Amino acid sequence: MSRTRVNNFSISLDGFGTGEGQSAEAPFGHAGDRLHQWMFATHWWHGPGGSGGVDDALAQRFEPGIGAEIMGANKFGYPGWHEDPAWKGPWGPNPPFHTPVFVLTHHTRPSIEMEGGTTFHFIDASPAEALATAREAARGQDVRIGGGPTVVRDFLAAGLVDHLHAVVVPIVLGRGVRLWDGLEGIDTQYEVEATSTPSGVTHVTFTRPGV
Amino acid sequence: MSRTRVNNFSISLDGFGTGEGQSAEAPFGHAGDRLHQWMFATHWWHGPGGSGGVDDALAQRFEPGIGAEIMGANKFGYPGWHEDPAWKGPWGPNPPFHTPVFVLTHHTRPSIEMEGGTTFHFIDASPAEALATAREAARGQDVRIGGGPTVVRDFLAAGLVDHLHAVVVPIVLGRGVRLWDGLEGIDTQYEVEATSTPSGVTHVTFTRPGV
Ligand SMILES: NC(=O)c1ccc[n+]([C@@H]2O[C@H](COP(=O)([O-])OP(=O)(O)OC[C@H]3O[C@@H](n4cnc5c(N)ncnc54)[C@H](OP(=O)(O)O)[C@@H]3O)[C@@H](O)[C@H]2O)c1
Ligand SMILES: NC(=O)c1ccc[n+]([C@@H]2O[C@H](COP(=O)([O-])OP(=O)(O)OC[C@H]3O[C@@H](n4cnc5c(N)ncnc54)[C@H](OP(=O)(O)O)[C@@H]3O)[C@@H](O)[C@H]2O)c1
Repeated sequence: MSRTRVNNFSISLDGFGTGEGQSAEAPFGHAGDRLHQWMFATHWWHGPGGSGGVDDALAQRFEPGIGAEIMGANKFGYPGWHEDPAWKGPWGPNPPFHTPVFVLTHHTRPSIEMEGGTTFHFIDASPAEALATAREAARGQDVRIGGGPTVVRDFLAAGLVDHLHAVVVPIVLGRGVRLWDGLEGIDTQYEVEATSTPSGVTHVTFTRPGV
Repeated sequence: MSRTRVNNFSISLDGFGTGEGQSAEAPFGHAGDRLHQWMFATHWWHGPGGSGGVDDALAQRFEPGIGAEIMGANKFGYPGWHEDPAWKGPWGPNPPFHTPVFVLTHHTRPSIEMEGGTTFHFIDASPAEALATAREAARGQDVRIGGGPTVVRDFLAAGLVDHLHAVVVPIVLGRGVRLWDGLEGIDTQYEVEATSTPSGVTHVTFTRPGV
């Protein structure tokens, strides 16, 4: 069965999934790269010399079995990106998705085919509609909800997420976009596990029973 | 050296230290007892049959070495408690403090001596003044900042906390009083550890270097 998953989604102790002041130069605003240092340190990301423990094992689940991603406009672009017809996201010519990627936005534009199997499609649709579209493109594989926090929150609120892997980083960001707002009691719909690792982060997984 | 400590301070994944709707019957509002089930299950709290692992070891640090506690008015009372001259807190005749307890409040009243060594003193003072008073009463022992979230946050913001033991419970409360508000970057002043346990909670300790 095709699942809807969130992987490697980092939040601060105070629940922020990104900092304030997003820009082309600072995609995470004042958070810099502090939310993902645990991930950059893994063998999966860093290659030789990277960490080989639980952080690495969980990080690696990002790609296998995924047939499409859905992301928000603010993950794809910086504020004002839609006025730049040449903008193709911050990942360079070969983005790390290698599948169709559906960008939720009120500023749709023609699809962009990148190297390595990534094609960006721009759609203005409800979470449920976007998921139906992405699922078809995924041809039986899983769909990743790639973030940012606004989009993950919307999919959680709509009951559309089967598995959430959140990574609590022990920093207090203070400002930005929060993941958990409006999701009171969401934990009761999932089997929840928490595992801290020597890097200092805590992997929290929400898995829908039976899926 | 006398340290200022916070022990067994539970927060939800979204950072709330208490729920909404505090009352005499529901001291934690809609959170009920969900923030402290991990603690009630320990041998320290429950006695025979209680859990004997890391939750228990950390929970036990609550009492030894403490010479005084400072707490907020909302921990001591329910909304409107100050109109009830007979109110002595929600803990019964023998409260679990066994030291002087300084209740920060704008509604001061005469001190109340309870069984078992607890005396409640009511003071209207800044965090630094309250700490100086409590430290004197503690006669060289540590001072516990007992909560709730408002008071812990104020002492953290004033730079007065040497050790914070927060316990992240994997529930999403959605409403209540948050611990981390206004504390951007506070983690950088401490050595931080995170340890998850089989009960599902994650113990996060902030320890001031060299103290
Ligand atoms: N913590 C992590 O692990 C992680 C993971 C990925 C990304 N991020 C970070 O998260 C940040 C972006 O997150 P964010 O919460 O600001 O925004 P976001 O979730 O990326 O995007 C939200 C935006 O997408 C568009 N959108 C969302 N739903 C839509 C719908 N149903 N129909 C049409 N348009 C829709 C809207 O933009 P328009 O109206 O402007 O089109 C909306 O403002 C970036 O800083 C990124 O680096 C963090
Ligand atoms: N999560 C945990 O582990 C934990 C631990 C302890 C308690 N709690 C819970 O936390 C809740 C209470 O927390 P809270 O954040 O609502 O309130 P609180 O921190 O207990 O008390 C705040 C109140 O104390 C008084 N106050 C604080 N600083 C003062 C100062 N410098 N001078 C004079 N008065 C001062 C003010 O009340 P007035 O102006 O009315 O006097 C203020 O509104 C309760 O539900 C309790 O059960 C949770």
